[in-house]
Amino acid sequence: MKIDKFVMSATNKKNVIEIIRTKGPIHKAEISRLLGLSLPTVMKFTDELEVSGAVKVIGKAESSGGKCPELLEFVSDAFYIVGVDVGRNAMKAVVMDLGGNITGKAIVKTGDDVNPEVTVARLIELIKTVIRKSKVPFDKLLGMGIGMPGILDAENGNVIFSPDFNWENIPLLEPLKKHFNLSQILINSNQAMAMGERWFGAGKQSDYFICINLGHGIGSAIVEKGEIYYGSCGSSGEVGHMTLEKDGPVCECGNHGCLEILASGNAIALQAQQAVHDGEESAMSQMANGQNSQIDAKIVFDAARENDKTAAQIINTAVEYIGIGIANYINLLDPDMIIINGGIVNAGDILLERLIPVIKERQMKFAGRKVKIKIGALGENATSMGAAAMILKEYINAGCNGKGIYRQTASHV
Amino acid sequence: MKIDKFVMSATNKKNVIEIIRTKGPIHKAEISRLLGLSLPTVMKFTDELEVSGAVKVIGKAESSGGKCPELLEFVSDAFYIVGVDVGRNAMKAVVMDLGGNITGKAIVKTGDDVNPEVTVARLIELIKTVIRKSKVPFDKLLGMGIGMPGILDAENGNVIFSPDFNWENIPLLEPLKKHFNLSQILINSNQAMAMGERWFGAGKQSDYFICINLGHGIGSAIVEKGEIYYGSCGSSGEVGHMTLEKDGPVCECGNHGCLEILASGNAIALQAQQAVHDGEESAMSQMANGQNSQIDAKIVFDAARENDKTAAQIINTAVEYIGIGIANYINLLDPDMIIINGGIVNAGDILLERLIPVIKERQMKFAGRKVKIKIGALGENATSMGAAAMILKEYINAGCNGKGIYRQTASHV
Repeated sequence: MKIDKFVMSATNKKNVIEIIRTKGPIHKAEISRLLGLSLPTVMKFTDELEVSGAVKVIGKAESSGGKCPELLEFVSDAFYIVGVDVGRNAMKAVVMDLGGNITGKAIVKTGDDVNPEVTVARLIELIKTVIRKSKVPFDKLLGMGIGMPGILDAENGNVIFSPDFNWENIPLLEPLKKHFNLSQILINSNQAMAMGERWFGAGKQSDYFICINLGHGIGSAIVEKGEIYYGSCGSSGEVGHMTLEKDGPVCECGNHGCLEILASGNAIALQAQQAVHDGEESAMSQMANGQNSQIDAKIVFDAARENDKTAAQIINTAVEYIGIGIANYINLLDPDMIIINGGIVNAGDILLERLIPVIKERQMKFAGRKVKIKIGALGENATSMGAAAMILKEYINAGCNGKGIYRQTASHV
Repeated sequence: MKIDKFVMSATNKKNVIEIIRTKGPIHKAEISRLLGLSLPTVMKFTDELEVSGAVKVIGKAESSGGKCPELLEFVSDAFYIVGVDVGRNAMKAVVMDLGGNITGKAIVKTGDDVNPEVTVARLIELIKTVIRKSKVPFDKLLGMGIGMPGILDAENGNVIFSPDFNWENIPLLEPLKKHFNLSQILINSNQAMAMGERWFGAGKQSDYFICINLGHGIGSAIVEKGEIYYGSCGSSGEVGHMTLEKDGPVCECGNHGCLEILASGNAIALQAQQAVHDGEESAMSQMANGQNSQIDAKIVFDAARENDKTAAQIINTAVEYIGIGIANYINLLDPDMIIINGGIVNAGDILLERLIPVIKERQMKFAGRKVKIKIGALGENATSMGAAAMILKEYINAGCNGKGIYRQTASHV
């Protein structure tokens, strides 16, 4: 890429914003020192940022000799962003400010009928609800980020293939645009979750991490130098469809022996239902009030914690596959952190207690020496907050020049 | 990263060099057009490059009106580089010019005794031999790149762990420095192979590719935007130690069911030897002149091509595992190309013929849509040329300012 003075100026301004956002309150001389930029250069940018309302003076630092320096802070409530997590079980939406503080939250069951029209109509209602609940005036909204599972054409706002929803080539942003005159970004749910953890959660300090989403299905995203590693057409991170059993059971994706069909929340539930159906002795049937089909992953984890043999065996096997999948990932990518999130994480200690030894055992000796395993910090808000963070990122990349400066439908590519 | 005028100038100069190297002969106005740089800026750089001897005028292009523009070319024989491939079966060395033209080549069997001292002594002799054979005067040598299998501390020139050589914490560059007063770079063999293909082979046009090394073992490297994706401590790409059989056979690395123990050249040979030993009917014994221990992967492939049932079954199973490993990789990283190289590639059509359908079958639907599968273009020279290319890269990054400008022991990190 050619570097000219415009690129140079934009990059340096972005760095100034990021320093104020992540390290503020901070004074200009400190910004100058941290970035190696001259004080006049820093002041040119901070003056612009103060005028646009993106940064404000919040007081004075103690003097180290001369005049007391002014402390600058990123203005978190300058704007708000809508973030949506379109999940197979539930759709969750948040409105957050630019500091990741949630001012409104709404959730709705996705339902059995996931026909695109029905789903989009429900999504539109959900977004209207969360905006109303947040009490944020519409002109304070910067945009909305939509996290959707599957393989996407983010640039055009289309879903190419979503096994969870059984959708192929469905336009998603187009119908939303008719209802909301806001910048919109479509991003894969797992990538959104990773960005949430990167901007506001467990990945703030990590340069290379992998975020694993253990839920109804299994997904992941790769973060490199703070950015999503998309790959050549945006489909990276499909760890759920890593084949781990050559002749294993058929997965929803059509292949055999994928990690997802061996160890996802859905797989764990189905295996337990099958075991009970086959007459294996277990407390799980009772825990589901005798309704076999109501045995879900939570019940299996709970039963395993109570030393139910059938449940424990299912969990142990699933955890072993998950550990193998993560160790394989570490061997390939050598990240400095693995962040685990998703519904299964609610199982808590029992999961990590068993998972970490499997990862360590299966990881190649001396490979991935710096890797730490962490549970995500944002819980069920990770995906919606991360989708919203993609709008925040565009705002910062555009120099925080207020609303409407950057293109209406922003693309992450 | 802060961008100042020095970074800006160095980046733009590097871009000018790369355009001349890859698109030359080329005239200055065309460079200006392609890079979006002003003509005076381009001329400032090309003048410097002509003075240092890195670029020369080789004639004039046809006039499109005014004066005939001068055509510039990268001077490939300004310097030469030594590249070494330290393999478990053989050590190969080349001397090449800056255009990847080989002027000397030497090869020596690694031998059974891979004690570090013995191996390093053999390596030093090999390097002396290849320099002598190349007839390149020592002051024309820019440096040497050493490709070594295993997990390395490239910065300090040490081997942290090499399962092939059974080495742990062995200094490799230190003894070489005593013999050769040249810049030295240590790089993982698979990463070197990928860089060879990137600079001079099948990956010249590809931004995101994975290079798979199918040989005695199985390794790989990831290339992103033309650079190796090292990960957080340089151990990325260990696809050979991807677990594909939870309870599979024990691998040299200590784990179970790794791709390498299921499908490498070594694994194929051992499986065939075992089958013959177990009395399975096969022509392989005869093909190895009755010497069971002499059955190698080549014999197994040759026998499979002649429809030997035992051989065909071993090859089919191995190819299926390799295909699964590659498909898993594609699902995670979504590259635009897979480049396959290494000794097994000599098996030729029979490998790709069977491998491509397995990859396509196991790859997730709609994931990795742009991926092409290619055989490497550099054959057995890929690793040594790629190790040498790391020195070339340093030379270009330093603005082609002649020998000795950049630090004596260059690091890739």
